[in-house]
Amino acid sequence: MALRRVLGLGGALGRRSCCSKRPLPPNFVEALRAVVGAPNVSTAMAVREQHGHDESMHTCAPPDAVVWPQAVGQVQELAALCSRCRVPMVPFGTGTGLEGGVNAVQGGVCFDLSRMDAITELSLEDFSVAVEPGVTRKALNSHLRGTGLWFPVDVLGVPPGVQWSQGCWGPLGCAMVLGVHQEYPWGSGCQDRWELGGQAGPCGDRTDAHSPGPRRKRAAGYDLTSLFVGSEGTLGFLTQATLRLHPLPEATAATIAAFPSVRAAVACTVQVLQAAVPVAPIELLDEVMVGACGCFSGPGLPMAATLLLELHGSWHSLAGQQQQAEEIVRLNGGSGLAWAEEPEERGRLWAMRHSAWYAALALRPGCQGYSTDVCVPISRLPDVVVETKRDLQDSGLTGPMVGHVGDGNFHCLLIFDPQDPAEAQRVHTFTQRLGRWGQGPPGGWGQGDRWGDSPVPSPDGVGLGKRALLLEELGQEGLDTLRRIKAALDPHNLMNPGKVL
Amino acid sequence: MALRRVLGLGGALGRRSCCSKRPLPPNFVEALRAVVGAPNVSTAMAVREQHGHDESMHTCAPPDAVVWPQAVGQVQELAALCSRCRVPMVPFGTGTGLEGGVNAVQGGVCFDLSRMDAITELSLEDFSVAVEPGVTRKALNSHLRGTGLWFPVDVLGVPPGVQWSQGCWGPLGCAMVLGVHQEYPWGSGCQDRWELGGQAGPCGDRTDAHSPGPRRKRAAGYDLTSLFVGSEGTLGFLTQATLRLHPLPEATAATIAAFPSVRAAVACTVQVLQAAVPVAPIELLDEVMVGACGCFSGPGLPMAATLLLELHGSWHSLAGQQQQAEEIVRLNGGSGLAWAEEPEERGRLWAMRHSAWYAALALRPGCQGYSTDVCVPISRLPDVVVETKRDLQDSGLTGPMVGHVGDGNFHCLLIFDPQDPAEAQRVHTFTQRLGRWGQGPPGGWGQGDRWGDSPVPSPDGVGLGKRALLLEELGQEGLDTLRRIKAALDPHNLMNPGKVL
Repeated sequence: MALRRVLGLGGALGRRSCCSKRPLPPNFVEALRAVVGAPNVSTAMAVREQHGHDESMHTCAPPDAVVWPQAVGQVQELAALCSRCRVPMVPFGTGTGLEGGVNAVQGGVCFDLSRMDAITELSLEDFSVAVEPGVTRKALNSHLRGTGLWFPVDVLGVPPGVQWSQGCWGPLGCAMVLGVHQEYPWGSGCQDRWELGGQAGPCGDRTDAHSPGPRRKRAAGYDLTSLFVGSEGTLGFLTQATLRLHPLPEATAATIAAFPSVRAAVACTVQVLQAAVPVAPIELLDEVMVGACGCFSGPGLPMAATLLLELHGSWHSLAGQQQQAEEIVRLNGGSGLAWAEEPEERGRLWAMRHSAWYAALALRPGCQGYSTDVCVPISRLPDVVVETKRDLQDSGLTGPMVGHVGDGNFHCLLIFDPQDPAEAQRVHTFTQRLGRWGQGPPGGWGQGDRWGDSPVPSPDGVGLGKRALLLEELGQEGLDTLRRIKAALDPHNLMNPGKVL
Repeated sequence: MALRRVLGLGGALGRRSCCSKRPLPPNFVEALRAVVGAPNVSTAMAVREQHGHDESMHTCAPPDAVVWPQAVGQVQELAALCSRCRVPMVPFGTGTGLEGGVNAVQGGVCFDLSRMDAITELSLEDFSVAVEPGVTRKALNSHLRGTGLWFPVDVLGVPPGVQWSQGCWGPLGCAMVLGVHQEYPWGSGCQDRWELGGQAGPCGDRTDAHSPGPRRKRAAGYDLTSLFVGSEGTLGFLTQATLRLHPLPEATAATIAAFPSVRAAVACTVQVLQAAVPVAPIELLDEVMVGACGCFSGPGLPMAATLLLELHGSWHSLAGQQQQAEEIVRLNGGSGLAWAEEPEERGRLWAMRHSAWYAALALRPGCQGYSTDVCVPISRLPDVVVETKRDLQDSGLTGPMVGHVGDGNFHCLLIFDPQDPAEAQRVHTFTQRLGRWGQGPPGGWGQGDRWGDSPVPSPDGVGLGKRALLLEELGQEGLDTLRRIKAALDPHNLMNPGKVL
C-alpha cells in the first residue's frame, strides 16, 4: 500500500498566486474520467456546492470538479494529473469541519475519499488495524465486533454508547476515522490511547511519507505522522492509517453529578484524574446547556454545572473505582450520583449529551447554530469558562456550553439569527475573542505564564477561519518554518491552497 | 522560552560536502568563549575524544571543540555563530547511544547540553512539567517526590524500582529525559502514556518550532513534535520539553514467571495485554540471560524463558489483577509466581534485570559488549527470537537476550573479543542481518505480509550505523522526502551532518 512511485513531475512552472482561480485546462475533466470512470467524476453544480463548504459560516467555494477515487493508485494518478496541470486538490471526508477547511477557495478538484473504505490487516495480537480514509468509527467498531478489541469511541470526543448521526455534528460527528482534513483526533482525556501511522499519498509532485505501522517502536528516519495529521490536507493525502486498538472494557458504569459551580465540577475532574480513577469520558455541561436539554428531552435535571462520567474496568475493580469517584464528587459538593451499568441505561444517560446540539438549536427555533472550540490547560478552564460566560452575556449571545473537561476543551454552541447582520457580527467578534482566550482572560494570566501565549487553542484546526490567529500564535518566524516545510513537500502550493498558512 | 528570534543569517555559501572536515575558522574558539565563558569551552583532546563516540563500535570522531551552554539564549547564540561560519553542530547528552549518533564525523562543535537541567512549570492540575535537555529521569522523579505524580520510569525501558548507573547502559541508561539525539523515548508497552512538546532551538540559520505545551489538544499549524523527536539532532536542538506526568500508582506488585519456551512467554504477554490487565513493564529474559544472571548474582532461577512483570493499580483492584495475571501465566505453562509488593522486595526482583548487562559481560571476562536493538510486531516476536537464537548459534556468537516484550522489542547483548577481527566481523554481519529481520526470517514471512517490509526496526535510531538500512526501508523516494525536509530546515547541512540521511 506504500506510495513510493515518483510522479515524475519536474519543471519550474510559476507558483499559483494565493487567491487566483483559473478555469480547468481543456479536456481535464475527461482525463479525470479516464482515471476513475465517468460515474466517479461530477461537475454538476449541486454536487460541487455540496463539496464547497463545511458546517462553518464560511461562504461556499465550490470546486471545479468532484472525484471519488476508490483506491490508492487512483489517488496517485489523479494527483499526478492535477500536479502536471497545476490544478489545486482539496481532500474531502464528510464536510463536517468548522473552519472552512474544505472550501475550494482556489477552485480545483475535490477528492471525496468516502468510497475508500477498506478495513484490512486486522491483527488481534498486535492490537492494530489498517483503515482507509472513508472508514467510519461505527463501521470500524462493527468490523471489530466479537474480537474483544475496539477503537475507543471517545477518541473523537464522542462518549461511548452514543449513536451519532454521521455528518451532523461538526467534528464530533465527523465520523470518518481520518477526518476531513486529518484534523487532530482528539478525545476525552484519552487521545494518548491510540496512534496513527498514516501513509501519505501524492502531494503536488511529491509522493511518499512512511508509516510506523504496527510496531510499537520505530526510529527509521523522520517520523512524519504528526506532521501530516494536523496538516488539514495541505501536505498530501492520507490514504491509509494504522490504528492501535484496545481491549473492550469488561465492565462500564456511567453517572451524572450536579455541582454548585463550574469551578467545582472542574476541580472534581482534576482530582478524579489525579487519583488515577480509570475514567473514560468526562463531559461538562453548563447550567444553560442542562436547562436546554431539560426543555428538549425532559430528563428533569437541576439547572447546574453537570458532569457526565463513565468508568471502564474489570468487574472486580469497578466497585472500588465507583466508590472513589463518588467520594471525590461529594468532596466537591456534587450530588445526584446514580450509576448506570447496563448499555441501555448508559445510552439513556448519554442521550442528554447526545442531544445537546439539537437542544441548543431548540432554544431559538429558526436560528442557526455555530460551535466554537477552545482548549486550554485544565488548570485554566474554570477561569476561561467564567470569563466566556460573562462575555456571552455582555455580547447578548445565546451560547450553552459543553466540554471534554478532562482535556480542558470546551465548546460554546452559539445560536444566532443569520438574518440579523448585527448579531452575526457579534458572533464573529465573540469567536475571535474566544479564540484568543487561550492567551488568558482580558486582564492576562499574569507575567511569565507561558501557557498564556497561544491564541489558537482550537482542536478543530486552522482552516480558513483561524489563519490570522495562527500568525499571532507562532509569530512570523514560526510561520516561516512551517512555510518552508510546506514548500519542501508541495512546491507548487497545490494541496488545499489558501488554508492553514 | 520560545525561540522566535531570527538569527539573521542569509547568503548562499556553498554547501559543505558530505565527508569534508575543515579546520575551525581563525578566532572561532574565542568567539565561543565570548558566548558561554572560557570554562564552558574545551578543545582538550581528552574532552574531545570523550565526546566523539557513544557506546557503539563506531570509531571515535572527536569534535573540534566542546561547549556547555547553560541557557536557551546561549544555544541560540552559539548556533548563530556556527551557522555564520558554516561549522557543524552536534548535540550531546550522555553519549550512551548505540548507533554512533554523536560521533563528529565532520568535526565541528559538540554542544554538551548536560548543564541545561532546569525543571520548571510544574503543574499538578495539568499533569505537566517542563524540563531542559540535561534533566535526568532520576532528577525529575526526585523533584516530583511528594506531589503524587511521576514520570513513569519505564518509558525509557527501565523497570520501576531499578536504579541505573547513568550513562553505562546504552539507551536504557541514557537517563537524560531528552536523550542524546532525541531518540524515541520508548517504553515497555507504555510509550503512549506521555507526550513530548519540545521546543526546537536554532538549527543552522533557522530558528523555531512550536510546541503543543500542556494543552491536551492543539491544532495550530503543523505539529513538529514527532518530526524533531527522532531526528537524532539533524534538524535542531530541543531546548525544552513539556512532559505529561501520571499519578503514582497506589499499589504495585511484581513477579517472575518461567515458561517452557519463548513462544509461550510471548503468548502469555499478548493475552495479558488483551485482557487489559494494567501491567506496567513486562520484560523477557531468554534462558541464556537467566543463566548468566544466575552465575552473576545467584538468584537460582531455572534456566528457562522468563517474564518479569509488574502491575500498577489501586489497593482495591490489585488482588483481582494479580489473579487474572496468574491464570494467564498458568494457561501458558508458566510457573514460579510469587508476588513482591514492597519496594525492597521488588527491587531485589528487578535486580536481576538490572544486572543483565553486567551478567552478560561476566560470561566472557575481558571481552566487550554490544547491545543490538530490534522491534517487530508482537505477533512476529516468537519467530524472530527463535531465528535470532539460531543465527547466534550458527555465527558462533554469545548473545543473551532481554526484551521489552510488550512492545515486540528485544536486545541481543553480544559479548565478543575486540582483539579478534574475525569475531568482530561476525558481530558486524550478524547485527546487519538482525537489523533486517524486521523484514522477516531468511525465508520471509510469506506473501502480502506488510509487516515484513522494514529493515530498520531499531528504536535506537539510525545514526551512522543504519543509514544503508534506512534506504532499504524507505526507498529512494521516501528518503528524498526526508531530505527535502532536512534541506528546508537546515539548508547548509550543519546539524549533526552525516547522520540519518
